[in-house]
Amino acid sequence: MALDPAPRVVVLGAGFAGLRAVRRLGHARVATLWVDARNYHCFLPLLYQVATAGLEPQDIAYPARSILRRLPVVDFQLARVVGADPGAQRLRTTTGEHIPYSHLIVATGGAAEDFGIPGARDATFRLYDLEDARALRNHVLRICECATTEVRATERAALLTFVIVGGGATGVETAGALAEFRRHVVPRDYRAFEASAMRIVLVEAGPELLPPFPPVLRARARRDLEAFGVEVRTGTRVSRITPVGVELAGGAHIPTHTAIWAAGIRAAPVAADLGFPTGRSGRLLVEPTLQIPGQPRVFAAGDVALVAGQERLPQVAQVAIQQGEHAAENVLRVLRGEGLLDFQYRDKGALATIGRSRAVAAIRGLEFAGRPAWWVWLVIHLVMLIGFRNRLVVLVNWAWNYFTYDRGLRAIVGAEHETSEDGEQARAAGGPG
Amino acid sequence: MALDPAPRVVVLGAGFAGLRAVRRLGHARVATLWVDARNYHCFLPLLYQVATAGLEPQDIAYPARSILRRLPVVDFQLARVVGADPGAQRLRTTTGEHIPYSHLIVATGGAAEDFGIPGARDATFRLYDLEDARALRNHVLRICECATTEVRATERAALLTFVIVGGGATGVETAGALAEFRRHVVPRDYRAFEASAMRIVLVEAGPELLPPFPPVLRARARRDLEAFGVEVRTGTRVSRITPVGVELAGGAHIPTHTAIWAAGIRAAPVAADLGFPTGRSGRLLVEPTLQIPGQPRVFAAGDVALVAGQERLPQVAQVAIQQGEHAAENVLRVLRGEGLLDFQYRDKGALATIGRSRAVAAIRGLEFAGRPAWWVWLVIHLVMLIGFRNRLVVLVNWAWNYFTYDRGLRAIVGAEHETSEDGEQARAAGGPG
Repeated sequence: MALDPAPRVVVLGAGFAGLRAVRRLGHARVATLWVDARNYHCFLPLLYQVATAGLEPQDIAYPARSILRRLPVVDFQLARVVGADPGAQRLRTTTGEHIPYSHLIVATGGAAEDFGIPGARDATFRLYDLEDARALRNHVLRICECATTEVRATERAALLTFVIVGGGATGVETAGALAEFRRHVVPRDYRAFEASAMRIVLVEAGPELLPPFPPVLRARARRDLEAFGVEVRTGTRVSRITPVGVELAGGAHIPTHTAIWAAGIRAAPVAADLGFPTGRSGRLLVEPTLQIPGQPRVFAAGDVALVAGQERLPQVAQVAIQQGEHAAENVLRVLRGEGLLDFQYRDKGALATIGRSRAVAAIRGLEFAGRPAWWVWLVIHLVMLIGFRNRLVVLVNWAWNYFTYDRGLRAIVGAEHETSEDGEQARAAGGPG
Repeated sequence: MALDPAPRVVVLGAGFAGLRAVRRLGHARVATLWVDARNYHCFLPLLYQVATAGLEPQDIAYPARSILRRLPVVDFQLARVVGADPGAQRLRTTTGEHIPYSHLIVATGGAAEDFGIPGARDATFRLYDLEDARALRNHVLRICECATTEVRATERAALLTFVIVGGGATGVETAGALAEFRRHVVPRDYRAFEASAMRIVLVEAGPELLPPFPPVLRARARRDLEAFGVEVRTGTRVSRITPVGVELAGGAHIPTHTAIWAAGIRAAPVAADLGFPTGRSGRLLVEPTLQIPGQPRVFAAGDVALVAGQERLPQVAQVAIQQGEHAAENVLRVLRGEGLLDFQYRDKGALATIGRSRAVAAIRGLEFAGRPAWWVWLVIHLVMLIGFRNRLVVLVNWAWNYFTYDRGLRAIVGAEHETSEDGEQARAAGGPG
């Protein structure tokens, strides 16, 4: 493989994998261009808190250019990539512009996997980016407003029913946060209905919640959620979702205008546009070196990558972080003419929070729950956030939430059409679709 | 006038006037319904800081229902009012629902006055609500991204030209904040162009900036802006605005995709729908008691009200605050069978900030500028904000901006279509049109 005299590595994607790759390359002083259709890195594990009015979008977003201030050899370009031309070593963008690369790291992340279930795509809310989180927050707040003036009992019940599909960390944390909203915010804000009128249902097709956790913690998470008043329905498949309800495989129907889809993850659509071979859920097939087969200059990392022999790796932040760093390390090895290393995942454990003082943690063989797990969760998430300002503001908001039991960020901003034109719209539409 | 056995006052509008009226009525334990198409009160004087990435929308928004937690006799309804039926004493909403009232305070606020200038409505950004501020912020950040890849010199110059029309407090503060953005953020974020390539033009039709201020402070504000590199063009009328430029009355043309309209204020459109007599700029004509003539149970307060004999009152927060309280006080007097009082404005002074350590203040006969005025501005705005959490987060953000010279909130969120589809769109569209 010939050494480029002036390599320019392109890292596509500003998620965990892309961010880590860019940092590794920037610190090694390799000329790098970072490309994403958004101008920021988003700390996705806290999206559900944005969706439940606990944090602001900017609290968990960090501008890409801020990250690059200390990496003078890295530049950023806001662009939406629509294809690749591996022969000419360049990417195509929506503007017709070409982005040449000497080496490419694809880290375009994931999107919702709907498994072909009718309505899963068009009649649900999701939690894959900040726009999703904002849409869900505005919808929940608007739905509560609609319920205050709704006189038909069955329609009010449907308005106040929230169904979360998927019992992984996102589903569990969202259900827990909604339960806290019901317990602490609803009684203070809404006199027209009882908090108990609000119903939160968590549906999971598998036999248990939080499959990556040890059995004792899975059971604990379920007990904690049920103690919070969440209806947990495991072993239950969803057959269809419409703007007015969720149909279960057994034939049961839950009337609701709020179905939150957290059931699975597939590669974001851009992965298919690149023209490289894909496997399960549209993910790019890569060698253990994270290289695309037959494309020694192209790597993939994070949710988009399906590593040969390691297909069962979970699609979580830790895997993306380690793969992003590994892909960058292998690019550096190529540039130095060294042999490439195979990716090895080091499992650092799993954490999920259910609500105030309730969480589950499985870290380095230790399994614990309750308040200690919750504090560990808080500290680790604060430390993992990027940027001192973000950490400070998140800390202020968390302290505020903790001491007041409140969710302060309840202004409905950025949903002008839905709120202003007609309250009836929200009732009729149900979903954002 | 007959006393209602169970009066229900309706306050329409959640701005300064509506908020103060609701608080006064709530503390007097009069059953009140607060109605607005948005579910929050917004602290409009800091909108320009949201627009320039210094604050988040939720920092200056406060949920209406939070305000009512301490006012058990007041309820809130999210509704868009489309008309009034004064004979039946009720309002009509978009959903067809009627809202009956025993007494009504109309405080629906202002919107942009375009004076019939072509393009002023459709080809500009405005700063009248949080959606406006978010749209302008996203546009400015997107424009800077477009400029990094624009190779045509004249097009790049147009992208980097920002024209503010109107030399009142909003125009001056926005121009100053953009100048700070150019000075402190651009050199750190954008290597593809020099900060000096960014051009900020403030156009004012009248002979001077900040007309309500004493002459020495008007001159000082102009000097400070010019020292910051803002081109100040007083005595200059705008004849037409298009997505690609601003035409001046003399025939000159400034190529730009960013025209910010801060030239005037008129009543928000809903005022016309109510069917009461309107005067200049669509404002409701009211007696000095703030009553609509011939409608003893209907009052108007704030930007929407044009008080007989006091037509020259400025449309600022202080007038709205005092009128909102006065309207509520007169409603209480009606309920108690007492005579009504005429509104008298107590001028508490004027403040405007130009940038870091630069502001002008005219308070109770004192005229001062520079650092002391800036500190007074900071403290007064912090104190006037509602909600401890908001004050704390604003303080954190201001301290961050002050010590780092940074604007941290530069993620483009909530403009998915503009950013994701096509960078070219922003160039072609220019305005939010």
